[in-house]
Amino acid sequence: MTKPALILFGHGARDPQWAHPLQRVQLAVQARDPARSVSLAFLEFMEPTLSACVLSLAEQGVTEARIVPMFMAQSGHLKRDLPLLIEQAQQQCPGLRLFLTEAIGESPDVIAAMASHVLSLE
Amino acid sequence: MTKPALILFGHGARDPQWAHPLQRVQLAVQARDPARSVSLAFLEFMEPTLSACVLSLAEQGVTEARIVPMFMAQSGHLKRDLPLLIEQAQQQCPGLRLFLTEAIGESPDVIAAMASHVLSLE
Repeated sequence: MTKPALILFGHGARDPQWAHPLQRVQLAVQARDPARSVSLAFLEFMEPTLSACVLSLAEQGVTEARIVPMFMAQSGHLKRDLPLLIEQAQQQCPGLRLFLTEAIGESPDVIAAMASHVLSLE
Repeated sequence: MTKPALILFGHGARDPQWAHPLQRVQLAVQARDPARSVSLAFLEFMEPTLSACVLSLAEQGVTEARIVPMFMAQSGHLKRDLPLLIEQAQQQCPGLRLFLTEAIGESPDVIAAMASHVLSLE
């Protein structure tokens, strides 16, 4: 069975540089799992939107995708805005099932890596 | 020589839950370096502000602090707002030297941990 596609969902910003860490995560994931579909999508300021990303995946025949919020924490964006966007995308592409995971900053391993990074600063 | 104090600087949000990952990073850092001063400060919605945090550290006799932006990437907040806040805090507390580091999401180790987390989702 094919693994679900991954959508790294970021806030977005006017400055193109803002997307670099997300692009690096995308590349790192693809390097370790080359067969996996890994896309970026953004809440605002950057393209593609979640809707456009989901549509593109559906057109490629993807039937399942996991949305990973690239946010420090469970913000209002994730609790209110994102579920609505997912509902809209789901209606637009009923053949592609979408699953939402929690903010990546909530992951214990990411928290441990952040703590190590902070301690490494001298 | 005492190591510089650490200030984990987050965006902040109306929802108190938002601060949990930052609090967990703070606790993890303190668990590994109990003698270290590790504070949280926020851009908006949450307390303390950077100004209040720096004032409190100065009153405790701290002479050096490193500000770690708990942001996914180098946003406009970090490029424009934060340097102004640091300048104001620096003028308010000239005896406490402040150093700014880059967004924690730019750290290669944090990026690697985020990629591992994404790949661990099944």
